[in-house]
Amino acid sequence: MSNDNPVIILINPQMGENIGAAARAMLNFGLIDLRIVAPRDGWPNERAIDMAAGALDQMPEPQIFESLKDAITDLNYTYATTARRRDMVKPIFTPRSANKDAAERNAQTQAIGFVFGPERTGLSNDDLSLCSAAITIPTNPEFSSLNLAQSVLLIAHEWYSAHDRTPDKVMDSGDSRPVEQEKLEEMLTRLESELEAARFFRDEGLKPTMLRNIRNIFTRAELTDQETRTFHGIISALIGKKSP
Amino acid sequence: MSNDNPVIILINPQMGENIGAAARAMLNFGLIDLRIVAPRDGWPNERAIDMAAGALDQMPEPQIFESLKDAITDLNYTYATTARRRDMVKPIFTPRSANKDAAERNAQTQAIGFVFGPERTGLSNDDLSLCSAAITIPTNPEFSSLNLAQSVLLIAHEWYSAHDRTPDKVMDSGDSRPVEQEKLEEMLTRLESELEAARFFRDEGLKPTMLRNIRNIFTRAELTDQETRTFHGIISALIGKKSP
Repeated sequence: MSNDNPVIILINPQMGENIGAAARAMLNFGLIDLRIVAPRDGWPNERAIDMAAGALDQMPEPQIFESLKDAITDLNYTYATTARRRDMVKPIFTPRSANKDAAERNAQTQAIGFVFGPERTGLSNDDLSLCSAAITIPTNPEFSSLNLAQSVLLIAHEWYSAHDRTPDKVMDSGDSRPVEQEKLEEMLTRLESELEAARFFRDEGLKPTMLRNIRNIFTRAELTDQETRTFHGIISALIGKKSP
Repeated sequence: MSNDNPVIILINPQMGENIGAAARAMLNFGLIDLRIVAPRDGWPNERAIDMAAGALDQMPEPQIFESLKDAITDLNYTYATTARRRDMVKPIFTPRSANKDAAERNAQTQAIGFVFGPERTGLSNDDLSLCSAAITIPTNPEFSSLNLAQSVLLIAHEWYSAHDRTPDKVMDSGDSRPVEQEKLEEMLTRLESELEAARFFRDEGLKPTMLRNIRNIFTRAELTDQETRTFHGIISALIGKKSP
């Protein structure tokens, strides 16, 4: 985790619980710089510490400011989350595109902030006008209200995802290795001959098609070594023999 | 919203609050089919209803099942969220790639389910083996625990994002239109001549560069019609004239 990661700025948060849940969501995704503008119940806040589930202990002490202007002095580019359109000329990003943009700025050593307004009212127009851009989280228009910590969670998750190199899909095969084609072929050949012996293929004309269909089941199943051996055992058991 | 959207299945949830927060997160992103396997405190649950902030009233009544097997009978493909690796051969997706995969299956009329284990213990290996694939949410390895409703929120958000057509970036210019180049040019020409009159360009050799730099500020600013007029007003005010 780097201190160059974006800053999360909460303006006038009302509920300590929300500050704590926001801190937890931040740390889940590697963000550790929390700034709070005029928290209603002051700071430190016991409820925030409880809800943070230990996150606040693993982050630098949050900085407290009197105004958003004071909180962003050292930042180069700030994104304000806002649920509704205002009569203001401002670029509006999705969470994903904002974080792609932020990651590119960050790579060029710009200091980035994500700004969140108070729970009930959202950001004031004056505070919004201090920010470089806006983010609106697309939601179900018939049920769109996200709470403060949920919004922080989604933005922090998108920040993390913009950098994460986890493969889209891996086959977790534990200690076993994906089977080599030779062993798969051996098992399939054995299956075929045992099926032949058991008179499974009643219609010789259909046999090639049936064999191909069976083969397709096993080729797409991405068997491991161990599973291929298990299948040998299954064949043996079904024909009433001991494992070879 | 369509009933063909994925189903969310919570296994043995302990806290009503988490069920309610999960329902709220679902509806935020257009998911309405909630199934609960053996909720610890039975159903209906007052705390769930409170935390749902009205979401449960706008969704069909959650279905209650005794086992995961019973809950998924009508589904074609299920993704189990799991935080840790098991010794099981199973494809593991990221939330984003899982939802891309799910969206493609959904478009081919497959019925999809996302499965979440109990808060403390996570999914049992037996329940995981009932599911087609796994999802692991990449997080800060030093602080990785997400609560149940947060996990549902992230998966539901990724589902919504996989379909959402919101442009990555729009310039919200309210009622005003982006300025036409002709009017921008008119303003820049006027600025140049007023700067000339005010002896801003002390070094004739540098003047072309300075003009280009000034022009770059305004061409990248994506001014609206109204803002261009405002700038005319600013020039007039600074030279001590009334607006033209």
